[in-house]
Amino acid sequence: MEKLTNAGRRQLLLSTGSIAAMAGLAGVARADLGKTDAPAKALPNYASWKDADNMIVHSANTIETRRTAFGSSVITPTNRLFVRNNVAPPTDANMMKEPDSWALEVSGVAKPRSFTVAELKTLGLASVPMVLQCSGNGRAWFEHNPSGTQWTVGAAGCVIFTGVPVKALLEAVGGMADGMVYMTSTGGEPIPEGLDPNTLRVERSVPISAMEDAILAWEINGEALPLAHGGPLRIIVPGYTGVNSIKYIKHLAFTKEQSPAKIQQTSYRWAPIDEKPGPNHESIWEMPVKSWINFPSDPDQTVAAGRVQISGVAMGGMTAAKSVEVSINGGKDWEKAEFIGPDLGKYAWREFVFNADLAAGTHELACRATNEAGDTQPEARRENNRGYINNSWRDHMVSIKVA
Amino acid sequence: MEKLTNAGRRQLLLSTGSIAAMAGLAGVARADLGKTDAPAKALPNYASWKDADNMIVHSANTIETRRTAFGSSVITPTNRLFVRNNVAPPTDANMMKEPDSWALEVSGVAKPRSFTVAELKTLGLASVPMVLQCSGNGRAWFEHNPSGTQWTVGAAGCVIFTGVPVKALLEAVGGMADGMVYMTSTGGEPIPEGLDPNTLRVERSVPISAMEDAILAWEINGEALPLAHGGPLRIIVPGYTGVNSIKYIKHLAFTKEQSPAKIQQTSYRWAPIDEKPGPNHESIWEMPVKSWINFPSDPDQTVAAGRVQISGVAMGGMTAAKSVEVSINGGKDWEKAEFIGPDLGKYAWREFVFNADLAAGTHELACRATNEAGDTQPEARRENNRGYINNSWRDHMVSIKVA
Repeated sequence: MEKLTNAGRRQLLLSTGSIAAMAGLAGVARADLGKTDAPAKALPNYASWKDADNMIVHSANTIETRRTAFGSSVITPTNRLFVRNNVAPPTDANMMKEPDSWALEVSGVAKPRSFTVAELKTLGLASVPMVLQCSGNGRAWFEHNPSGTQWTVGAAGCVIFTGVPVKALLEAVGGMADGMVYMTSTGGEPIPEGLDPNTLRVERSVPISAMEDAILAWEINGEALPLAHGGPLRIIVPGYTGVNSIKYIKHLAFTKEQSPAKIQQTSYRWAPIDEKPGPNHESIWEMPVKSWINFPSDPDQTVAAGRVQISGVAMGGMTAAKSVEVSINGGKDWEKAEFIGPDLGKYAWREFVFNADLAAGTHELACRATNEAGDTQPEARRENNRGYINNSWRDHMVSIKVA
Repeated sequence: MEKLTNAGRRQLLLSTGSIAAMAGLAGVARADLGKTDAPAKALPNYASWKDADNMIVHSANTIETRRTAFGSSVITPTNRLFVRNNVAPPTDANMMKEPDSWALEVSGVAKPRSFTVAELKTLGLASVPMVLQCSGNGRAWFEHNPSGTQWTVGAAGCVIFTGVPVKALLEAVGGMADGMVYMTSTGGEPIPEGLDPNTLRVERSVPISAMEDAILAWEINGEALPLAHGGPLRIIVPGYTGVNSIKYIKHLAFTKEQSPAKIQQTSYRWAPIDEKPGPNHESIWEMPVKSWINFPSDPDQTVAAGRVQISGVAMGGMTAAKSVEVSINGGKDWEKAEFIGPDLGKYAWREFVFNADLAAGTHELACRATNEAGDTQPEARRENNRGYINNSWRDHMVSIKVA
C-alpha cells in the first residue's frame, strides 16, 4: 500500500467520515482529537485523582495523556499517566486499604506457595525506570480504522516502578520447575459466574527471558501503587507493551504453554489486516524503537518565529535509545538532536532537544530514533489488523504554525 | 563537647523540657515528632494540593515530608516535597496564570536586558535531577536548641528541575561583565513600603563557579513549577542548600560583592554556637555527603523478625555518592549496602538497600555514605549557632522494634 502524506491521509480520513471528520477538524491531524470542543468525559471514580485538564478520557477504562502534558523532565507524573484496563478493575475496597495483605500464588516452581505483599517486601528491592506503553498507542493513525481506542501518543509514560525482582522471588521458591517456557501472570479481576473464564480472564504469558528484569511492584514514582495502575501488586515486564504487565496480579506461574485466555490466544497478535488474529500469529510482546515530538505539538498554538527548542522523547524498546534526528521539513532533511537530562537506563525514554530557527509559516516537524541494537524508527508503520505498535515517524509528525 | 548516645541525648532533651518532652514522647527520638497525637496544622492555601497525610506542617512557610513517605523510587513526588519559604510567597494571582509572562532582569553582563519566561524557553533546555535540601534539615538533633524549624530528615527531596541553563542565558547576553565574583539572585516577594529592603529581601549570592550547572527552571518533575516551589521561575543551584535556589526570581545579577541583604550577610552562616553569625563567618552554600534510612523508620510500627530490606537514600553533595554502609547495632559494626535503581547523576541521591536478618528486640539502625571526593559522613554533626547542615550519622540513626 502506497504511503500517503499526512495531508493526503487527513483528506482520506475526512472523506471517509472518520471520527476526525465528525469532529469537524478540517485540516487538523487526528493527533489533535483531544483538542475538540466536544464535552470532555468525566474521569471514572477509581481514577478521579488524575489531572483532568491534562487527560483525554476515551472511556472509563481508557484515559490518555495529552501530547502537550508530558513536560520535559523524563518522568511522567503519576497523575498524568495513561490508564488502560481490559476489563473493569476490581471493586473490593479492602484490597487497597490493606495492600500488604494482598496474596500472590506462585506455581511452576520447585516449592509452590503463596506470598503476601508484606512477605514479598522482605525478599528484595529494585527500582526500574521504564516506558509503560499500551500496545495500541498510535492506533489513531492506522487507515483501516481498527477497532479499539484511538490513542495517538498518550497511551505511554516513563515511570519508576519499585518492588521485588522476580529473580529474588524465584530464589525463595527454589527456582523454576523443569521445562518451563513462559512466565504467565493472572490478574485479580473477578470473573462473573457462569462465564467461560478464558473469555474475560486477564492473563498473559511472556517468554521466561523477560523474567530477567521483571519485578513485582507495589510502588510507582515513590507512592504506593494505586488501583488504577494495578495496585496493590503488579508484575512489571520492562521493554514489553503494557498488557504484559498484569495488574492486581494474584497468580504468577511458570508454564510450558501460553495462557489459554482469549487475551493471549486471539487478542494482541500481529495479524495482517485481512486476517482474523489467532494463535498462529506472533504475540505482541517487545516494544520497538520509537520517538515523538511533544513541543511544539499544540495545533491551537502559534509559535513565535525565530529560535525554537523542539523537544520530545525517544525510547529504544529492548535496548537504549542511542540517537535521535529531527526534521523541520516533513522528513526531507534530518539533523541530529541532543539528549538532555538523566539517562535512566535502557527501558526508559530519553528527553531530546533540537535547536531550530523557524520562519513564519507552517512547518512539518518529525523525529526518528535509533537504538543501541541499530534499529531506526521506520517511516511506515507495520500494518496489522488491530492497529498495534505504531512507531512510524511519519504518523507521529506534527504540523506547526509559526508567526 | 562529648557526644551523647542517642539514648543519652533523648534523656537530656526530656529532662530539659524540650518539645519532645512536652509532646510526652518518653523514650522516642525527636525524629518522631511528626508522629505525635497533637492536632495536625492545616496546609496553607498555596500548598493545599500537598499530600497532607504524608506531610508535617510546622507553619505556613515550613512543611516537612514524613520520613516514612519517601518511598524507594529515587524521585520525591512533588506533592510530598517539603516547602520552606523565608517570607510569605507573593500573592499576585496573575503570575501563576500567565507564567510565560514573568520577567527576569539580567545584569552584570555585557548586554543587560530583561527576558520573559517565554523568551527564556527559546534559549535552551536542560533537565537536572538533584537533591533539594533546606540548610536547616536535621536541626532537630542539635542540642543547643537553635531557633528555626525543627526539621529531622524531611526538609529534603530528590526532584528533576527543567529549564534553561544559565550558561545559555549568558551566551545570549554576551557573557559576564569583567571582574564578577558572585551570581546574585533576587526573589519576587513584595517588600512592604517603609521597610529597609535588606531586612526582608530574599537575595542570595553564590560563587560564579556554581553557575556551571545552574538552570532557570519553570518545571519540576514534569509539571509547571508551582508557586509553592518558586514558580513561575526559580534559579536552581545544584549541590547548594535550598536557600541559594531563589524562588520567583526577578533579577539575576553577576556581582563583585555578595548581596547586602540580611539573608546573605547574617543568616545562613557557619557561626560557632556562642558567636553571633555575621559576614565574617563562612556562608552556607555547598551540601556535604549525607544519608539516612527511610525504611524501617516508623517508631509506631513493629517489624516482623527475620529478613528485612533496610532502605534509604545517600547523597554526595558536590560529587556523587559512591558507597554507603549500614550498621544494625548502633554504629559498632558496618557492612556495605547496595545501590538500587537509576543513577540520576552527581547531584541526585541514590536509593540503597541492605538485606539484614533481625531478631526480636530493639535495633539501632544507622547508615553512613562516602562520596566520590572521598568524604565520609561523620559521626558528629558540625556544631553551629543556627543548626545548619546536620549530616551526623549518629543523629540520623533510628531505633526499631522487631518482634
